[in-house]
Amino acid sequence: MENYLFWLVPTASLVALALAWYFYKQMMHESEGTEAMQKIALHVRKGAMSYLKQQYKVVGLVFLGLVIFFSIMAYGFQVQNSWVPIAFLTGGFFSGLSGFLGMKTATYASARTANAARTSLNKGLRIAFRSGAVMGLVVVGLGLLDISFWYLLLDYCIPTDILNPSAKLCVITTTMLTFGMGASTQALFARVGGGIYTKAADVGADLVGKVEAGIPEDDPRNPATIADNVGDNVGDVAGMGADLYESYCGSILATSALGAAAFITTSDINMQFKAVIAPMLIAAVGILLSILGIFSVRTKEDASMKDLLKSLSFGTNLSSILIVIFTFLILWALQLNNWFNISCAVVIGLLVGIVIGRSTEYYTSQSYKPTQKLAESGQTGPATVIISGIGLGMISTTIPVLSVVVGIILSYWFASGFDFANISMGLYGIGIAAVGMLSTLGITLATDAYGPIADNAGGNAEMSGLGEEVRKRTDALDSLGNTTAATGKGFAIGSAALTGLALLASYIEEIRIGLSRIGETVLTFADGSTIEIHQAGFTDFMYYYDVTLMNPKVLSGIFIGSMMAFLFCGLTMNAVGRAASHMVEEVRRQFREIKGILSGTAEPDYERCVAISTKGAQHEMVFPSLLAIIAPIVTGLIFGVPGVIGLLIGGLASGFVLAIFMANAGGAWDNAKKYVEEGKFGGKGGEVHRATVVGDTVGDPFKDTSGPSLNILIKLMSMVAIVMAGLTVAWSLF
Amino acid sequence: MENYLFWLVPTASLVALALAWYFYKQMMHESEGTEAMQKIALHVRKGAMSYLKQQYKVVGLVFLGLVIFFSIMAYGFQVQNSWVPIAFLTGGFFSGLSGFLGMKTATYASARTANAARTSLNKGLRIAFRSGAVMGLVVVGLGLLDISFWYLLLDYCIPTDILNPSAKLCVITTTMLTFGMGASTQALFARVGGGIYTKAADVGADLVGKVEAGIPEDDPRNPATIADNVGDNVGDVAGMGADLYESYCGSILATSALGAAAFITTSDINMQFKAVIAPMLIAAVGILLSILGIFSVRTKEDASMKDLLKSLSFGTNLSSILIVIFTFLILWALQLNNWFNISCAVVIGLLVGIVIGRSTEYYTSQSYKPTQKLAESGQTGPATVIISGIGLGMISTTIPVLSVVVGIILSYWFASGFDFANISMGLYGIGIAAVGMLSTLGITLATDAYGPIADNAGGNAEMSGLGEEVRKRTDALDSLGNTTAATGKGFAIGSAALTGLALLASYIEEIRIGLSRIGETVLTFADGSTIEIHQAGFTDFMYYYDVTLMNPKVLSGIFIGSMMAFLFCGLTMNAVGRAASHMVEEVRRQFREIKGILSGTAEPDYERCVAISTKGAQHEMVFPSLLAIIAPIVTGLIFGVPGVIGLLIGGLASGFVLAIFMANAGGAWDNAKKYVEEGKFGGKGGEVHRATVVGDTVGDPFKDTSGPSLNILIKLMSMVAIVMAGLTVAWSLF
Repeated sequence: MENYLFWLVPTASLVALALAWYFYKQMMHESEGTEAMQKIALHVRKGAMSYLKQQYKVVGLVFLGLVIFFSIMAYGFQVQNSWVPIAFLTGGFFSGLSGFLGMKTATYASARTANAARTSLNKGLRIAFRSGAVMGLVVVGLGLLDISFWYLLLDYCIPTDILNPSAKLCVITTTMLTFGMGASTQALFARVGGGIYTKAADVGADLVGKVEAGIPEDDPRNPATIADNVGDNVGDVAGMGADLYESYCGSILATSALGAAAFITTSDINMQFKAVIAPMLIAAVGILLSILGIFSVRTKEDASMKDLLKSLSFGTNLSSILIVIFTFLILWALQLNNWFNISCAVVIGLLVGIVIGRSTEYYTSQSYKPTQKLAESGQTGPATVIISGIGLGMISTTIPVLSVVVGIILSYWFASGFDFANISMGLYGIGIAAVGMLSTLGITLATDAYGPIADNAGGNAEMSGLGEEVRKRTDALDSLGNTTAATGKGFAIGSAALTGLALLASYIEEIRIGLSRIGETVLTFADGSTIEIHQAGFTDFMYYYDVTLMNPKVLSGIFIGSMMAFLFCGLTMNAVGRAASHMVEEVRRQFREIKGILSGTAEPDYERCVAISTKGAQHEMVFPSLLAIIAPIVTGLIFGVPGVIGLLIGGLASGFVLAIFMANAGGAWDNAKKYVEEGKFGGKGGEVHRATVVGDTVGDPFKDTSGPSLNILIKLMSMVAIVMAGLTVAWSLF
Repeated sequence: MENYLFWLVPTASLVALALAWYFYKQMMHESEGTEAMQKIALHVRKGAMSYLKQQYKVVGLVFLGLVIFFSIMAYGFQVQNSWVPIAFLTGGFFSGLSGFLGMKTATYASARTANAARTSLNKGLRIAFRSGAVMGLVVVGLGLLDISFWYLLLDYCIPTDILNPSAKLCVITTTMLTFGMGASTQALFARVGGGIYTKAADVGADLVGKVEAGIPEDDPRNPATIADNVGDNVGDVAGMGADLYESYCGSILATSALGAAAFITTSDINMQFKAVIAPMLIAAVGILLSILGIFSVRTKEDASMKDLLKSLSFGTNLSSILIVIFTFLILWALQLNNWFNISCAVVIGLLVGIVIGRSTEYYTSQSYKPTQKLAESGQTGPATVIISGIGLGMISTTIPVLSVVVGIILSYWFASGFDFANISMGLYGIGIAAVGMLSTLGITLATDAYGPIADNAGGNAEMSGLGEEVRKRTDALDSLGNTTAATGKGFAIGSAALTGLALLASYIEEIRIGLSRIGETVLTFADGSTIEIHQAGFTDFMYYYDVTLMNPKVLSGIFIGSMMAFLFCGLTMNAVGRAASHMVEEVRRQFREIKGILSGTAEPDYERCVAISTKGAQHEMVFPSLLAIIAPIVTGLIFGVPGVIGLLIGGLASGFVLAIFMANAGGAWDNAKKYVEEGKFGGKGGEVHRATVVGDTVGDPFKDTSGPSLNILIKLMSMVAIVMAGLTVAWSLF
């Protein structure tokens, strides 16, 4: 072990997991309320669990196929190291586990939150927030635990006297990136499947319930309402948990791999190890200080909504500032070369995340002009709502993209010691910025996961007829969740872009390893000059493979990558459309055939709707997800390394912008509707409201299915490329 | 003059212009119908002309500013040659002139088409098609005329004994590309302004007229109906004319510049000139054979609709096949090196265009599944129509992108003599494929421009009360136009992608010239090795500026480029939304304040609506258009050459896919509505119809404003980069 500081990493993760356990137990001691409330919560819990079981079956089959494939690659053709299949499996397992635990907590917490809201707003907030914190802490805790487990295992298992330390690091980083790919694969299925489930139910419930039958949201007379509440859990909780587990691990692992590369030419092998563990240390510091932030969220009993929001922001801000200070301290203590500049990259990453979060809030919150104008456009009907929303979403991409660009340039510039030619250090800096952005994940995810819990609590209150006052409180909790979720989404998208770049750089590193594996020792350039592979830098590989922007293979890859982002969105949008229309038919059928539903004398058949959403999601998630796995492999087999790099860049550039567009347009439509419901432009039930409901319905798959799935698509394609680099290097058509 | 074959170029252009004049005169001899018809036609003509005057004033100011700027650059700082300002002006002038002449013809032709339709369907088709052919022939005729004028002028004006032949060619190609930039700038304003105008009027007319008041399209009681018809002319005719003039000239000029580059290292200077004129010759052959195709479009008097479509396709197919044959002949006669493979690139370009056209037709025509399913989704309301349409549009990007990728790889591969390392020849091949794709423009544009004429004829027939039978005929003509327009759009988008790549390569050539201009004679690489600038190939420049995919400046450029495409679309979408809502308010006001409009006893105030659209378009077009000009300049000043290349690639990759998505989604929404109007799912006036009208309204700015403007954005950004290359080379921040 290089440094005693490393032990901070598993320690932080265990602290996080212990605290998650404590919060969970604390929540479970609360009462679940009346019999009706318990019954509804049970319905939702059962539906969610049975969905997850079904989903894990399908994903299990996909994993089985991939593990067999990797085993053949590793043990048969020996183009990969032998840890790959196992690492892949564990990544998938823990990503799924994060989602599962978060969702389990959420399904127990919602009725308890509703019940607590009967006492006071404050008590409701505490339960919901602490239950959200369970998810945040489980994700970061499990993430760092797995990373440190694999790191320690590999570090002890591979004898240094057989392989040189650099080669050892290579095995460590490749294996751990495969672990990341397992997490990504699981996350993509969870996001896509969960996203389709929740939005099919939501859109279906809205279209017939709100629009046709004119009954309010979460009304127990609506047969799709249980499916809708289940959807919040499987999509917004389990899906998001798996997603962010993957982002978190992905950014740390990619940056570690870049750290190994950045110091590959130094004589000081220790420095390589230091660069590898630096991102893990930053994450560990982030966990501990996030916990401090979570505990700092305390309010007086008679606090107003604004006070609550302030106290929440106080927690996040406190964590951020402390993380900045402690990052400088810990990197200094690690005695990492260039530690000051690298710490600056952490600060840059944090700042970029905050700017993106603020810009998301500006474009999607009804407190600001854009969303208010969007609501106003409803005066001329649904068509102008859609046109304006798409316009708003597209324009809203400007600030996030520009701030990521500034982040890329500055973090690169600082880490490279203000020398653009120092590519490997510069790229390490970009990775470090991504880790910095995600270092507060413990607390930001807590505020994020709190949203669906509050939403479900509202559903429970409505369905069990808790009365106006309670429903008003749960609505307030829900609305607070929307504001915090905006910031969370900004972090998720921004970090995906930076992590995508870091993964791209890791890909080049894998090329190096792949070439060594097939017996190459030197790179021979077009002009006849040569360089030894272990001495070659990023630029050398770029020139060796001619990854310039005039190579038609690179250009083809870029076009295909850009197209992939759109195709993937199109497939998931259509999937939601199809599944929702089945839901609509079923709800219409029940209204028609089961007499007395609308008068409240007969109970609708909730299970049928749950089954339809489950079947639709399972059926529809497979093709787009497999496409994301297959595209980089096929591109590699046809166009080789230049084509794959083009594909990743094209997918990243289009996918990033498309994801912001979809998330913001969807968020703005949602809040424009809420703005009208607050009594503007004729309020609930008026013409303008009806127009904004159309916008909200269109926005559902935008912001909760296609948009967030793009984040994972970007990273999964990179992960697949990395893991398959051995194959691409060994053979391609052109 | 290198070769007597060159004279084919001006000859072909003069033949085209003469024939356009003949068709115009022939059309003018026809009767314009009843007094009511003449009055309406006059209204539309006046509105269109007064709009164009207004537009030229605004564009004139922009041009004045740019010409002053270029003059300072050329005469003051001497970073550009002295022809640049004049070339820029003429490009703008002729692009505008193409649109103006096409529009003038169209405004005279529509009433005549409606009148002819009173006699027979066939006669109506003849007049509309031949009038469309005027536009097609004017665009290609003026295009080649200007190109040959500049080529001859510069060839004679620059003494070969002072400058070496290569330097002379450099001046020729730079100047001519500036001419292309003038055309692009004009085209962008025409497309954006015209697009906003037409869709503000269309959306406004539909929202109040069709949806609220329940009166049919083009009903004279609708105050916005004249503005709507004016819009078809200024947007779909004048805008499209300027646009395709620019595509046509741009692809030829970029390819010529690449031709000069491809043979720069040969000792045979003649070969350079041959490579420069080869694309012009292919275009000239294309013109002559398009004319043959136009004349082959003959039908029997009692022909059915299917016969007409067949006869139209026959014309296009005949032209295409003959162009293939004659291309081989003429390149052989020119004795161009590698003539056989280069001819193959022409064939590849033509085939890719056809595949894209077919795929567009499949995804947007109501004869096929996708659009039928889209109409079906209207059964669950407008929200699912929007979701499914967006899904359809996104999925429909797959075939066009993949076929362009295949086209890029194959045309490169053939032209390079099956050697990927032969970059300059390969890129020349890509340019040649673009020229091949546009070689049939004379006839495809005829079938394209025919659409709005038929549309306006329908409007005229409806407004002057010509009765059910005539309106049915004009509807049939309109519907035929929709089918042919799909193919035309495919060509426009596909050629924009290929031309974009060719322009990118030309940019590198301009870098060479820019470096020479500031006194550099050798490129010094990082490892200390050098190469003389006039000997350097594309790859050398790539390495010199480190334009690899690991350079953060390149990556930043790619992100910004991708964002630009979305931002530009967002701005134009919002512009339409705003202008349309003003229109809606005005129409509502008129219905409210002018008593008797709906009962037909009072005439609405058409002029007010025309004025609103004009003002809206003028006001809204300036910012997005200027943005397109400024972005490459600013990116260049901050990130230098690598940043600009990244910007262009990012804009191209995202913009291309986004353009297909928007065009196809819009087209499918339009036709899904038509499908319902044909009596499916309850027919006109039913719930499904209302849902699809929302889709159609959203689709209007998709397919006629934002989507087509993207084509020009891609090329204009490249043109600006090329023209400003001197400045970028001389100074940048990083």
